[in-house]
Amino acid sequence: MLLIKNVYVNGKRQDILIEGNKIKEIGEVKKEEEMEVIDGSDKIAIPGLINTHTHIPMTLFRGVADDLPLMEWLNNYIWPMEAKLNEEIVYYGTLLGCIEMIKTGTTTFNDMYFYLEGIAKAVNESGIRAVLAYGMIDLFDEERREREIKNAKKYIKYIKDLNNSRIIPALGPHSAYTCSKELLEEVSKLAKEQNLLIHIHMNETLDEIKIVKEKTGMEPFKYLDSFGFFDNNNVVAAHCVHLTEEEIEIIKRNNISISHNPISNLKLASGIAPIEKLLKKGVNITLGTDGCGSNNNLNLFEEIKTVAILHKGVNLNPRLVKAEEAFKFATENGAKALNIKAGRIEKGYLADIVLIKLNKPFLYPKENIYSHLVYAFNGTVDDVIIDGKIVMRDNKILTLDEEKVYEKFEKAYYKLIG
Amino acid sequence: MLLIKNVYVNGKRQDILIEGNKIKEIGEVKKEEEMEVIDGSDKIAIPGLINTHTHIPMTLFRGVADDLPLMEWLNNYIWPMEAKLNEEIVYYGTLLGCIEMIKTGTTTFNDMYFYLEGIAKAVNESGIRAVLAYGMIDLFDEERREREIKNAKKYIKYIKDLNNSRIIPALGPHSAYTCSKELLEEVSKLAKEQNLLIHIHMNETLDEIKIVKEKTGMEPFKYLDSFGFFDNNNVVAAHCVHLTEEEIEIIKRNNISISHNPISNLKLASGIAPIEKLLKKGVNITLGTDGCGSNNNLNLFEEIKTVAILHKGVNLNPRLVKAEEAFKFATENGAKALNIKAGRIEKGYLADIVLIKLNKPFLYPKENIYSHLVYAFNGTVDDVIIDGKIVMRDNKILTLDEEKVYEKFEKAYYKLIG
Repeated sequence: MLLIKNVYVNGKRQDILIEGNKIKEIGEVKKEEEMEVIDGSDKIAIPGLINTHTHIPMTLFRGVADDLPLMEWLNNYIWPMEAKLNEEIVYYGTLLGCIEMIKTGTTTFNDMYFYLEGIAKAVNESGIRAVLAYGMIDLFDEERREREIKNAKKYIKYIKDLNNSRIIPALGPHSAYTCSKELLEEVSKLAKEQNLLIHIHMNETLDEIKIVKEKTGMEPFKYLDSFGFFDNNNVVAAHCVHLTEEEIEIIKRNNISISHNPISNLKLASGIAPIEKLLKKGVNITLGTDGCGSNNNLNLFEEIKTVAILHKGVNLNPRLVKAEEAFKFATENGAKALNIKAGRIEKGYLADIVLIKLNKPFLYPKENIYSHLVYAFNGTVDDVIIDGKIVMRDNKILTLDEEKVYEKFEKAYYKLIG
Repeated sequence: MLLIKNVYVNGKRQDILIEGNKIKEIGEVKKEEEMEVIDGSDKIAIPGLINTHTHIPMTLFRGVADDLPLMEWLNNYIWPMEAKLNEEIVYYGTLLGCIEMIKTGTTTFNDMYFYLEGIAKAVNESGIRAVLAYGMIDLFDEERREREIKNAKKYIKYIKDLNNSRIIPALGPHSAYTCSKELLEEVSKLAKEQNLLIHIHMNETLDEIKIVKEKTGMEPFKYLDSFGFFDNNNVVAAHCVHLTEEEIEIIKRNNISISHNPISNLKLASGIAPIEKLLKKGVNITLGTDGCGSNNNLNLFEEIKTVAILHKGVNLNPRLVKAEEAFKFATENGAKALNIKAGRIEKGYLADIVLIKLNKPFLYPKENIYSHLVYAFNGTVDDVIIDGKIVMRDNKILTLDEEKVYEKFEKAYYKLIG
């Protein structure tokens, strides 16, 4: 058992007792002999953050090309490099991403990519929690569709066989403009059969929406809804930058969770998602960083601050997306989207807990700490507990040899650009 | 003499030799006995950042009230607290702000506030560089105007008498909607006589522009220009969120530098400055955080990232404000605005230099480091040299006792809210 003693949590100083991978008690807990103790007296405890849209191995593409239109960036830089990836390179890219996330307080991420054995291996070793989907793209080609479905099934089985409760398989059809109706129908069916989350890009750019409309006569959400894609499925729709009122209705009616990626959407000049409208409608809004090619980091605290300030400025409404709402997007709402009992520090919840030392200049005065975490903090956390295990202590990762990862990562990177 | 050995600077590995408060040489420098050496082999050296709009003691108001309209925030929270300030409280507020800036790589700030003896004392002790203006507000009252001008002159003399080249006096008329024409004329004259920078808020909100237009029949820049306020003066205009084409012409013609404060403008829902237009016109754009009441930190790296992504997203143009431009706003352009020979690491420039260890996860792969500093870095720097002196080493401030400052700051804060 692990006891966090005298930590500031849920608005007051209390103790947190962890047994196995769960929070057993919060309040005043007497120390017993078999308990490992962390002194929390100069710290605040927050639920680990949940990043609902990543392509984690894209740490390898950080800074490779910036300030370009999406298609130029993909065609000339990202896709040629992605063609050289393999399980081993992806493994090191993921390890670096896991270090970055843990160091900035993220305990769970929802990923879509390829070479999932490499990703799962890194997730397993780092101690982080992840929902992993193989990114399926058939480009309306039947042969390719069959291959993609076969791959997806193979990775789902692979992950299930790992039998690690921290690693959850999901389905990742890339988008309505890169996947055929047949593929999407098969995904929808599989998701129901195996009770899997569907992770999909939706309405990221005006261009892709135009493509879908020209092909189907409908906006992407309407098109997918027309053949029952969302029915009784648990869906995380990433981006949702441009939405019609009708599409917002479809999102609400189907309990689709939005992964809002404000930084990526700004950087790629995709636009700004209509968060004001989605909030009014009561849609479950969560936050994602997207891949490091378009952000260029995995620090979800930046997303929290950005969502809290951006929509105020764009809508000229200072009351929009208050600090506590922004924080909830990155914790409770993320957990709800991924269907895991996390995102809150409460009895019975998963022990995914982040501790932050309070003696940082931007956390003073020591009042309104929750405001500081949203508007002033830079994301450098001190201790991270995931699934009941201490993964980082005093900013040092315990599960991995950081320096060795950096070294191997650099080698993997040079294989890509070599 | 101080020698930084084998550091990555201006695109390659070289040595930097500092003598007195200036950079004496860059290239290959032979170590001599009298030189203190910093090993730069795992680091990058960048020019210290320049924050061109702050109200530094407002660290005391961090998180006091968020998510409110500007006037409600000022009337109900900020102004009642400001009424309780004194030189001592402001001194501790400034000390904390200096720690925060140094720790995030800012070496110069351009401030407007009251109780300048307290501010100057903290600047002096911390080792940072600052341009300090007393914030003048007469609300169109003659008696108050005379008091404000007297105060401004008193502080200018006080700062000049300190005879510290790191602390530069300036004139700080608050704005066109809070200062009479007579006060502004007097400021314009004084600035010319004593060769002082003018630091003023301009066009932050639509409301204030309306007030000025109703009073004078002109937009703020046009109004000030009409009586020669800008003539032959060096002016930093903070905010400039809403500008007419004619005002942009006035800005350009008078070589006015803009202090763009994107985060504060978003958080207070003031709007988004027309950076695209200002860039096209060749205006000198610099960056400011504003006070900690509306940001809520002094981490200029956040401003750099925000300016680089925000205008891309708003204008749907991914090529707008490239990484190197955003970085230049915070370095070279800031130095130009404040008329100091800084913002570049070159022979003869002031030795205001920041070192950053490269073994941070978000700085990998170790290529395109300048992109990482803009898009991926969180601002945690390692060593800071200001005016030739080492002010921070390995993230530890050498000029101040951090823990003691935190303690005294908390006490000062409780006096304000008590």
